Amino acid sequence: MKVDLIIENAHILTMEGKGVGFIPNGSVAVKGNIIEAVGSAQDISRDYQSDNTIDAANKLVMPGFIDAHIHTGIAIFRGVAQDMSNWMQKGLWPFMKHLTPEESVKGSMVNIIEGLKAGTTTFCDYDGRMDLIAENYKRIGARARLAELVNEIPDNIGDLPVGELYPFDPSIGQTKFQRNLDLYETYHNSENGRLSVILGPHGPDMMSLELLKEFQHYGEKLDTKLHMHVAQGDREIDQIVKRYGKRSIDFLEENGFLNERLIAVHLTEATNEETERVAKSGAGMIYCAGSIGIIDGMVPPVHHFLQSGGTACLGSDQAPGNNCNNMFNEMKFAAILNKVKMSDPRVFNATTSLRMATIEAAKVMGIDGEVGSLAKGKKADMIIINLQDPTFFPVLTSPIRNIVPNLVYSARGHEVETSIIDGVVVMENRNIQTIDEAAALAEAQKAAESIAMRSEQDILNAESDILNMVREGLL
Amino acid sequence: MKVDLIIENAHILTMEGKGVGFIPNGSVAVKGNIIEAVGSAQDISRDYQSDNTIDAANKLVMPGFIDAHIHTGIAIFRGVAQDMSNWMQKGLWPFMKHLTPEESVKGSMVNIIEGLKAGTTTFCDYDGRMDLIAENYKRIGARARLAELVNEIPDNIGDLPVGELYPFDPSIGQTKFQRNLDLYETYHNSENGRLSVILGPHGPDMMSLELLKEFQHYGEKLDTKLHMHVAQGDREIDQIVKRYGKRSIDFLEENGFLNERLIAVHLTEATNEETERVAKSGAGMIYCAGSIGIIDGMVPPVHHFLQSGGTACLGSDQAPGNNCNNMFNEMKFAAILNKVKMSDPRVFNATTSLRMATIEAAKVMGIDGEVGSLAKGKKADMIIINLQDPTFFPVLTSPIRNIVPNLVYSARGHEVETSIIDGVVVMENRNIQTIDEAAALAEAQKAAESIAMRSEQDILNAESDILNMVREGLL
Repeated sequence: MKVDLIIENAHILTMEGKGVGFIPNGSVAVKGNIIEAVGSAQDISRDYQSDNTIDAANKLVMPGFIDAHIHTGIAIFRGVAQDMSNWMQKGLWPFMKHLTPEESVKGSMVNIIEGLKAGTTTFCDYDGRMDLIAENYKRIGARARLAELVNEIPDNIGDLPVGELYPFDPSIGQTKFQRNLDLYETYHNSENGRLSVILGPHGPDMMSLELLKEFQHYGEKLDTKLHMHVAQGDREIDQIVKRYGKRSIDFLEENGFLNERLIAVHLTEATNEETERVAKSGAGMIYCAGSIGIIDGMVPPVHHFLQSGGTACLGSDQAPGNNCNNMFNEMKFAAILNKVKMSDPRVFNATTSLRMATIEAAKVMGIDGEVGSLAKGKKADMIIINLQDPTFFPVLTSPIRNIVPNLVYSARGHEVETSIIDGVVVMENRNIQTIDEAAALAEAQKAAESIAMRSEQDILNAESDILNMVREGLL
Repeated sequence: MKVDLIIENAHILTMEGKGVGFIPNGSVAVKGNIIEAVGSAQDISRDYQSDNTIDAANKLVMPGFIDAHIHTGIAIFRGVAQDMSNWMQKGLWPFMKHLTPEESVKGSMVNIIEGLKAGTTTFCDYDGRMDLIAENYKRIGARARLAELVNEIPDNIGDLPVGELYPFDPSIGQTKFQRNLDLYETYHNSENGRLSVILGPHGPDMMSLELLKEFQHYGEKLDTKLHMHVAQGDREIDQIVKRYGKRSIDFLEENGFLNERLIAVHLTEATNEETERVAKSGAGMIYCAGSIGIIDGMVPPVHHFLQSGGTACLGSDQAPGNNCNNMFNEMKFAAILNKVKMSDPRVFNATTSLRMATIEAAKVMGIDGEVGSLAKGKKADMIIINLQDPTFFPVLTSPIRNIVPNLVYSARGHEVETSIIDGVVVMENRNIQTIDEAAALAEAQKAAESIAMRSEQDILNAESDILNMVREGLL
């Protein structure tokens, strides 16, 4: 059979089955944007021909990574709010106040480039003005599962004294909610299905029960998932207890949110009992190892979630906290932080991390019929990784096969040579084919400098830890 | 004044003073292997001329990293012993038994390449047959501070039941000790001072008190440091208690080892009180964040050591555990693991990590007069980092300067473009100038495959967790 592309002679991790689906000396046949076959090089070369082949000897072929939770709209603030208390209020807020949607989009593009160059092929982006950011994904050719970040909170919330109940403004809520519906209308299943849209309620503390119920209603009507921060920080629990007299998980359960439609992000403050309840409800969990570790000094109960039978995956969150958006980084952090939390080196092995960055992420996001593993009929989203980089040395397949441990604990992202998304080679030999990377960077850098200049007075007024570090020559 | 090289128009982190010594738009003038001047681009261009200049606009110039603790001799086993119990006995040992010194040296070279390509310029290598490994450093042109790993333990120690006292063989001890002295004789201050040698007692549990005393004697005689694992694992404490009726730190203190000559590696099992005693004694500490986190699921008391006024630094340890040897990785892990341990995002800030990979490491290793910062009179060891990589986006210098946070939390190592060691450009545009990288990798890969084949029966007999994972298709 004639196909459009054959990638041949590779080590393959299909991520099918319960492990990693290793195939030594294998090939993948692609027709249009669909995987036609995955198998031994011998079988594929017998059954398929193509004018377009990629020799992947000494390379690894695997599904592209799925970054389940990323806010690319604030990437432009990478590194400005580090190692400090009041990260949001004193670190980010003085900058955020001055960010225009156009600048946010420019920063987002660099963030997408960063992820793409580290093997991410599907971005579950969750931010404001996703209608503008969606155009970045359209241009660069990456797969995206988008959600508008919706809340009812006025823009000047940063000035509210800590501990006071957030004021809700229904008109803000309606505007943002409508944006999420419009986003769905415009982009869901657009670009040959490469872009899809789900719902993005910011968190149970960030809007009235009425608006949450609207989300619930539309979730059912559109048959789609709700991407929502849940039990993220004591601040949220405090708000929910003050408002409803109970904790977040109880509140969500009583209102019918704990089910397979919910994608619960963080669960930082969930007790083991609450974690178990969420896991058993069928809701998915997104664990952001780097961001929660660095911003909060915490390890969320993801290990307990998995032990309770839940489906969980990894997300890189946002650049100003984490502060990189690289699934290699997340896989490493997830493994080591949970080993240390449980005082056990066997906990959270490399395979667990790898699955949570691929097939398990597809399950949580509801796209495992399309991506997350290499199998006949799935979308042709895959990456080719150079195994001849020192970070992969040595490559052994028998009796011990060390490719997966080295992928998770040693590789860093630059080993990814080629990315194929929806059957299209979007990156080849580390060069993005669809946009001008240097121009995107230069444009975003200019925007960042302009915001920093306009924010100066607010930054000085904030008297943050990081400002003091700069003044003392510590940065 | 005429100099041999000027690197100009860079952002510079000199790492002088108590912070990072930031110089915006600066230059470095190099004469021979020595830094002649560091300062503003304007001052340097006024005072110095050279036929050889490097334009480092939009780049960062800083001292090369110092990896304070690395065992390159076992890099050939990267990834073969992951996520398991009995890491040493069931994971490494079945392979180690079959390793020849020549194969160890081949693997070591790839490990050095890996570090070099991630900005390490000084390797404090600590392994057996360092006389052979030293030749790798000679060839590749990196700076090395070498120690022979000396113990009195027979090679078949892997077969000893857990909990039994190690048998000491004085003839083994003398052979290895003599190797350390010969190494000193042959290589100390060789290659224009690029190679230096210190003493390497394996650990207090690994040899008789008599041999430890010999080390002490020679340490004073040669006026050099003792690079030693201390309080590493409950196994060591158990051995020392059984043999001497006291814990490791008490034992070392009573025998006069707690002083500025001691470089204590790991301190995994040290109590806070013991940690404080070591810190106050003037001994240095090496913290191996990745290796101890991944192999043991632990975070050693390095934060307490620093709080007690001690001088501590970072090391990448060995590839089969960590399993990469990249100081970017260590800086990240050190910061996030300690934030999580102390439940405080302000703990272990980016500057702390960065200093511990540069100037503090130089202090611990006793080479801060030569390297670790950029200052007139120091050796010309520095790296040039591309700030136009997405991982560094955006570069802001005012009012918040985000270069250091992005260097520590976002950069991964591939951003290092050029490495200058002892005034020589050893890597240029990521190409190592001194050896054939691809040939070194191919040779080492061949050796690794040969060992894996020869070790097969021992690996199968070990019935390790990782072997079972391979059998079940999980790897």
